[in-house]
Parts: sequence; C-alpha cells; structure tokens
Amino acid sequence: MRARLLSAPSAASTASSLPSAGARPRRAVWRPRGPGAPPPPPPLSLRARASMQPAAPLPERQGVPPVHGVSNTVVGVLGGGQLGKMLCQAASQMGIKMVILDPLQGCPASSVCHEHVVGSFSDGDAVREFSKRCGVLTVEIEHVDAATLEKLEEQVPYTQLQDKYRQKKHFSKFGILLPDFMEVDTLHSIEEAGERFGYPLMVKSKRLAYDGRGNAVAQKKEDLSSVVASLGGFEHGLYVERWTPFVKELSVIVARSRDGSTVCYPVVETIHKDNICHIVEAPAEVSAKIKKSATDVAEKAIKSLEGAGVFAVELFLTEDDEILLNEVAPRPHNSGHHTIESCYTSQYEQHLRAILGIPLGDPSMKAPAAIMYNILGEDEGEAGFFLAHQLIQRALNIPGASVHWYAKPEMRKQRKMGHITIVGPSKASVKLRLDKLLQRDTYDPKKASPRASIIMGSDSDLNVMKDAETTIVSAHRTPERMYDFAKSAKDRGVEMPKGIPVATIAIGNAENAGLLAVKMLASRDPELTDKVLKYQEDLRDMVLEKAERLENIGWEEYLK
Amino acid sequence: MRARLLSAPSAASTASSLPSAGARPRRAVWRPRGPGAPPPPPPLSLRARASMQPAAPLPERQGVPPVHGVSNTVVGVLGGGQLGKMLCQAASQMGIKMVILDPLQGCPASSVCHEHVVGSFSDGDAVREFSKRCGVLTVEIEHVDAATLEKLEEQVPYTQLQDKYRQKKHFSKFGILLPDFMEVDTLHSIEEAGERFGYPLMVKSKRLAYDGRGNAVAQKKEDLSSVVASLGGFEHGLYVERWTPFVKELSVIVARSRDGSTVCYPVVETIHKDNICHIVEAPAEVSAKIKKSATDVAEKAIKSLEGAGVFAVELFLTEDDEILLNEVAPRPHNSGHHTIESCYTSQYEQHLRAILGIPLGDPSMKAPAAIMYNILGEDEGEAGFFLAHQLIQRALNIPGASVHWYAKPEMRKQRKMGHITIVGPSKASVKLRLDKLLQRDTYDPKKASPRASIIMGSDSDLNVMKDAETTIVSAHRTPERMYDFAKSAKDRGVEMPKGIPVATIAIGNAENAGLLAVKMLASRDPELTDKVLKYQEDLRDMVLEKAERLENIGWEEYLK
Repeated sequence: MRARLLSAPSAASTASSLPSAGARPRRAVWRPRGPGAPPPPPPLSLRARASMQPAAPLPERQGVPPVHGVSNTVVGVLGGGQLGKMLCQAASQMGIKMVILDPLQGCPASSVCHEHVVGSFSDGDAVREFSKRCGVLTVEIEHVDAATLEKLEEQVPYTQLQDKYRQKKHFSKFGILLPDFMEVDTLHSIEEAGERFGYPLMVKSKRLAYDGRGNAVAQKKEDLSSVVASLGGFEHGLYVERWTPFVKELSVIVARSRDGSTVCYPVVETIHKDNICHIVEAPAEVSAKIKKSATDVAEKAIKSLEGAGVFAVELFLTEDDEILLNEVAPRPHNSGHHTIESCYTSQYEQHLRAILGIPLGDPSMKAPAAIMYNILGEDEGEAGFFLAHQLIQRALNIPGASVHWYAKPEMRKQRKMGHITIVGPSKASVKLRLDKLLQRDTYDPKKASPRASIIMGSDSDLNVMKDAETTIVSAHRTPERMYDFAKSAKDRGVEMPKGIPVATIAIGNAENAGLLAVKMLASRDPELTDKVLKYQEDLRDMVLEKAERLENIGWEEYLK
Repeated sequence: MRARLLSAPSAASTASSLPSAGARPRRAVWRPRGPGAPPPPPPLSLRARASMQPAAPLPERQGVPPVHGVSNTVVGVLGGGQLGKMLCQAASQMGIKMVILDPLQGCPASSVCHEHVVGSFSDGDAVREFSKRCGVLTVEIEHVDAATLEKLEEQVPYTQLQDKYRQKKHFSKFGILLPDFMEVDTLHSIEEAGERFGYPLMVKSKRLAYDGRGNAVAQKKEDLSSVVASLGGFEHGLYVERWTPFVKELSVIVARSRDGSTVCYPVVETIHKDNICHIVEAPAEVSAKIKKSATDVAEKAIKSLEGAGVFAVELFLTEDDEILLNEVAPRPHNSGHHTIESCYTSQYEQHLRAILGIPLGDPSMKAPAAIMYNILGEDEGEAGFFLAHQLIQRALNIPGASVHWYAKPEMRKQRKMGHITIVGPSKASVKLRLDKLLQRDTYDPKKASPRASIIMGSDSDLNVMKDAETTIVSAHRTPERMYDFAKSAKDRGVEMPKGIPVATIAIGNAENAGLLAVKMLASRDPELTDKVLKYQEDLRDMVLEKAERLENIGWEEYLK
C-alpha cells in the first residue's frame, strides 16, 4: 500500500474503521514487575482466556455492533521491518487491521498493512499522534522512544528491558542464573572487573545493542582502553560479562497473554556467525531434561515481567548442562521464524492473540523438524541481489523449503534480506536439504542418518538380514554401550525387563522386520502411509487372485 | 492499501517497479489443446524447470539488473475476492508484487496487494488497460471477459472451459469418464434426454454456474418446463446430465508449470451442503487404489489442457469404485484452502510458482490430517456477523485450528466469509476437534478412534492386558474378518507369512506392549517423542540410582 506522511493526513486516514482520535491505546508492551508481585488482574473488557478451554460466548450487548471476524481492534506497530511485515501477514489471514509507524517509504511491512504512517518511532510526537489511530499498540523493534511510551501508559517502565544492564539486574534479582556481570564506568573499574572475571572479557554497551553491535571482546588487560573506545567510551554506558564457554545457544519463545498465562514454544538451537543469527534448528537436539530446564528458566523470566505479547528468551547451555540466561527480547524473534511453517500457531499469530486478549494458540510443532536459514546480504547493491537470488533459486528446488523475501529496498552486507525455512519428516532430512541448499556436500548415504537401524549380534545374522533390503552401515559411530548391549543380548535371551519393549519377528524372516520398521515410521508419515497401504492392497489382491485361481483349477493343477 | 480508479490513474500508478505500458503480459491462463497435440515448448525466456532437480544458475547478463528476491515480475489478478487475497498473502511472503483488478473498493485482496485498480473484469477496456501494468496475468474467478483475454493473447480459447458444456465435450474427447450429458435447446430435446437418462434429471446452464447456481433438478417429465424457466430458458444455453448417485465427492488440485510438467496434491473429500462447499477432509478416506485412479484422472484432464497454474478437478466416486469427472476450475480452489497449513507448498504459492515459471513445490502434506470448514453467512448483516464471531471464538480455543477471515465488507446469507482449517496428528483427532467446533457432540471416548487397538483372542487375556492402561473398547465395529482372524490366530500359532509383520512381546508383559505401541506412534509425533524420551531418561536415572545404591550399601543391605 502507499505510504502517507503523518504531518499531512488525508481524509481517508480517519476512515470509520479506525477508533476515534484521543482514545488511549490498551497496553500491549511488557513491564518488569517486582519480585513476589501478584499477576495483574485481567482487563475487565476482555473475556477470552489464554487457555485451551472454550471461552464463554459473549452476550450480545444492546446497541454495540458485534465483532466482524476475529477482532475489531486496530493494531498499531512501531516499526515496519521484517518482523512487522510477518506480523501483518498473520493479521491479514485473520482479517485484523494493522497500522504501521516507520520512517521508511516502502519499508517491508508497508505492502501488507492497512495503513503505513511515515514517521520516526524515536520521535515522541509522532508516536503520540500515531497511537491515536489504534486500539492497541505494539513494538517491532527495541529502539522506540521509551519516554514517550511511558507517557502514553505511565506504569510501563519500558527502559528496564531496553537497558540490557538493568535487564540483567532484574532477572538476577529473581534468582535466574546468568553469566556474572558488572557495571563499569572508569578504566579502574573495568580493570578490576578483568581481574575478577579473567580474560577474555566481554564488554557490552547497555543500549542499542543487537546483531552483535555494541559488543566487543578484550583478550587481555592491555586491550581494555581500545575496546572501550570502540564502543563509544564509558559515557555511552558500559558493563562487562564473564566469558561464557557455552556448548550450545538455545532459545525459547514464550507467549504471555493479557491475563498472565503463558505458553512456551519448543526449545530451539540458534547458531550465530559474526554475532548474527545464521541458522535455527527446531527442535534443539538436547535431552528432555535440558529442554525442561531451558523452558523452566524462560518461563520464570517472562513470569517476572508484566504485559502481553511474545518474548524471546536467549539462553546458554554450559558444559555442565547448566542453563544461563543471555537476554530477553520483548517481541517476535528471529529464532521463531520457523514457527510460521512448523508450528500450529506461528509466533506472529501468537503475538496478535496475546496483545488482543484472544486465547493463546497451540505452540507445538505440527511437523517433526524444521531448520531456518537467514538470507544475509553477502555484498552491497546489485552484486548482493545477484548472490541472494542464486541462493533462492536453489531453495525453490528443495522440497519442504519456503522462501521469505522481505523486499527491503536496499541491499547491504550482513543485512537480513529474507530467510528460508525447511520443514521435513526428520531432523536428518532437513539437515540434508540444508546441505544441498548451501552446496556444502554432495549426498553421501553413509552420512545420511538412517530412519531405521539394524544392530546385529554377529555377522552370521547378515545372511538373514539382507532380505530387509537395508543399507548396512558401519557401526563405528554407535556408542560402545549399545554395542555391548547388543552383544550380550544374545546370551541373555530376548526377554527384556519392564519398560524396554522389544518387538520380535519370526526367526529367519528379515523381510517382516523391515516391514515392521516401515510401518512404525509410517504411523505419522502420510507419504509412507500411502505406500504401506498400497503394499497391503497389492498383497491382498495377490492373495485373492491366488485363492481364486486355486478354486478354479483345483490344488493338483495349481501345484504344477 | 487504498484503491484507485482505473479511469484516473495517479502518477504513482506508473511506479518504476511496474513494467512499461504496452508490454504484452506473459500467458498465465490455460487453454484446451487438441487430442494428441505435443506439449507446448517452454518459453525461451524461462530457465526454471518444474521438477525437484536444481535449475542451472542463470548467467549474469550484461546490463540487465539481477532479480531482487524470488521474481521481479508483477503479477496481475483479475478479481480480488478471497482467492485473490490468499494469492496475495503467498506473494507477500515471497516478496512478489501483486496488482488486482476488482470493481469493489475494499475487496478482500485490496489490503494485501501492491495496488488495487478499481474496475470491472468483465469490461474489455478495463482488462486491457490493467494488463499493461503487469508482467503476467491470472484470474481468480471464472467470469472474466473471455473475448478480451483472447484478444490479449490470441491463442487462448478461454471460453472452452468457461462454457461447462464445451468443457465436458473436451474431456470426453480425451477418453475421460464423466456422467452422460447432452445439449438441450427445445422442450422436445429435453424430453428426449429425460427418456434416455431417466429421472431425476440434472439440468444445468452452460455458463456462470458456481456454488450450485445454474443447476436445477427435474424429478419428473412434468417438471421440465418450470426447471428450464428457473434457469433462464433455453436461450441462456442449457444441457442435461444423467443423475449420478455418487458415494463421495473427491477433489484433486493439479499444478501445471509453464513447461507442461504437473504435480498433484493429495486427494481430498469435499462435503457439500445446499450445493456449496461445506467441509473438506484431507486426505480423503479412500483406498490407495481409488486415490491413484482419482489422481490419474485429474492429471489426465489437466494434461489435455495448455497453460500454467493451479487447477481443481472435482470428481465423483461411484458405488462401483469408478471415478467420474465432475468439473474443472482453472484456478486455486476452495478444496485446496487446507494446503496453506497442511502442505509443504500451499496451492497459492504453487499457483504463483506455476505462472511465473518457478519450479513447482512439494505438494505433499507435512501434517497427517487436516479438515477445512467454511464460515458461511448464517444470516444477513449484523446478526450474521454475530453468529460468525461466535463460531470463530470457539475456533480460537481449539488446538491446531487456524482462522481465516476474508474481511468482506458485507455479510450475506450463504456467503463465504472465511474458513477454519484444523490440522492435527490424526484424522480422528481433527474430526473430534471439528465436532467440538460445531458443538455437535460432547466427547465420547467410545466414539474417539483409538490410536492403538488391542485384539484379544479370548477374555482370559484381559487380566494381562489391563496393565497396558488402555481403554478396552467393544469390538462390534471390527469387521467380521478381523474377528475370525484373531480367533484363529491362536490355533495357528503366532507365525505370520511374509508380508505381514507382527511384533511379539514377552509373555505376560502387557506394559511393554503398550510402550511399544506408544513408541511406534511417537516416531513422527514430536510431542509424544518428548514424552517417550522423558520416560526413558527417568527409567535410566532410576536404574543408575538403584545401581549406585547397590554399590554403596552392598546387596545384603539392599535386599532388606
């Protein structure tokens, strides 16, 4: 849609569908609350609940026109980048009206919103004027004018999360583990911190830090003054963090509804490159125990805040299986892009549900595995567009891959220009497809994780197992324990204790073992189910044909 | 976005992103071709292929700016209803620019397209003028001005599918089975047809027939003249069809790329009410054989046509398992709405891929089952909005349900206002959720299809099987054959022939049988997988704990 300047609104901008000017927007941003504070009471005007239970039907109110569709409320978004665009796409599906405040004509969200107001979200007057156009206000980026937001809704101490140092202080007060940190404001204090935390030492600016900007590493004491200078000096507001040698970076998207209830998305692993999100794997390949503690930490962090919406909780997994909080972003997040294709409710629809007071949707995955790859600018201008298009062309040839292109007017190096999500029946298959996308490897059957493995007690079984028509792979990656188990199983007999079910098949019938494995896999693989059904029908037809032939010609003739 | 009148284009309407006026649009509509005609050669300007193989990278052409994102081509759509809207939503994700021609200000697609031109698609001048704005032209509705389309691209005999009688003649020429039909133009000829086909007799108008409009049934000879009058008389163009007592109505969405290659979506069942699509079940519950013949018929029908895009092939399944073609719609279709949530590539993205010459995407389902329910106007005006909102509120409480609201300005009885798609891990679960949505039934565990069934040879097994913690359901629905089989299995021993794998578990250990069933189901159910992993980890921890205790205290103390 075409953009319009805030300073010169046309008659159409006050279309009847928008709420009357001067109405105070309902709060849709979060605020930290003090430890032990009770959850805020649900707003009186809202009846929907954030649970899976059916809400009581709204009684028809005399004279009040009924809701047309999902909601009559116009949602205002500060920022019209890719997050705003994907929020608008989710809104379009549900028929929810979106208005965007962004200084850039032709910003990504401008083509899919109901109205784009050209103005700066760091300009208090623009934000105030904009807020009159919408029934609920939300943010797409963290760098909005906090003072203005506070004036709009006095009880929102927005600055407390915006300032990363205050954010950390808040969470540590709630007993959430995070890397050791301390404020530094002189060369003396940072040297002290270096002595306490050791080197390398992470130096960070308190504000406007994202995608690796505002972070720098001092390898030794002598680096400190140059590192401080590179971050704009102490007057910019700095703090340091103990270097965390993490095993994996994890992320949990938590949605919090207006009544305080929360739902958590599956834990994902994020892989960064040059401090920018590069790849997201869903679900993360960690134990159920780690998944649980990551989810617990994330939920605890969000429950310590107030307000509604989707939050991203970035975490470190340490060598000792400890979960440390890295930081929290109060908005839809790069680590949740995959949810558009892989989850029952995307993080964008979820954010809208949360801020509008609609019951939260099911956050679980509807497909077994997904992988998200960011399309980052590899070069400036047209050369960068050319390279991105080559990547996209490969993606368009990969089954299960969805291409998102944000349509940003300008290409820049390292800029997020789009992303590709690959969804598939297993983690192994989506990883293989990612390899294909990135031309990292030619296909190697030995590298492909098999969907069913056969463990043999001795090579004398090989003669039988070959009927299963399975590629027999070397067992050198099988953990020693599994090998021992398989070796000793023969001596112990096939009987297994309670809790370890083992399927056994008639002796010498490997074909049936293979078929059983396929049937197990087919239980939730529609394509495989079709093949199994086809096989069974063919088998039945063959048997019926033989039976008919037997009846027709008699057994003596048949045996000839 | 705001609409603009075609007659008064503003300066912005000729934005640099749009192709220069006068350029002929590439053809994106279909045309029937003669029997035996070779497939049309691929357009020279296109290199992408409609297969899953990677396309060769485009060589960088001197002086030609590279593609920004997926495609630089602007897509024009004749019609801005819900199909146009969902097409625009798919385009927005891929960053493809869409322009819409529709007479209605605020039509559904207007809020999500790049530009909405207000004009009639049955007005030749408007269509011609509109076509200059886009690089490729497609239709959302069938009632466009065919003569104009033919003038734009002379070789497109668009009328041949638009006229349902000519459509049927075309397909029968290609050996595709369809209900008997004949043209009628006098009372005498329709009476003759009635004698030949018998009663009830289906009377149809050749054009402008959709959602049951243009169809009428004559129960007996005496009804004929009033039925003909209700359809506007013989001068309107009528034909009759033999009454088809079908078992099910099926539909197959077929995508055909610019190079003639096709992919088919899974066969779905469509359930109509008052001749309007009411519910769509994906995949259809029919045998693999019937799925195959339905897909074969659909593919054959589309291969007899030319042009690129997505086509819906509506089919009848007869009592004799015969597949008859009902009709073909040359566009995305109500029976393919579910693909947005349930398939790797939605029918809308697929249509864009097909008309733009991008390789076709994977049409298979990424989740095991989906069900689509149309939100039809139940009343006029505000009363209708109130009822629709009540339905939507229930949908928002159902896991796996996605609400689509088309945001049509006016509510009318029987009008398609939106739809709800429920995706889930099994057909039984999505059906149960639909029942909940429609408040058709309270939950009845006997009605819920179990995910695992236990068939016992005699009630003496019951004592063992109760450990599996399974609801034991009455077997009265089990086919007789299955009962006989189970009864005789005991006598025959457990050995099964090749092709029928049977998992056996240690005698007296029903808990393991239950666990095995759960593990099978978990192989592609992420939620269940998590639970199984958790169970196994707990089990391991318990064993390790016991082992540690045993080592610490010695076996004599342990046994106390």
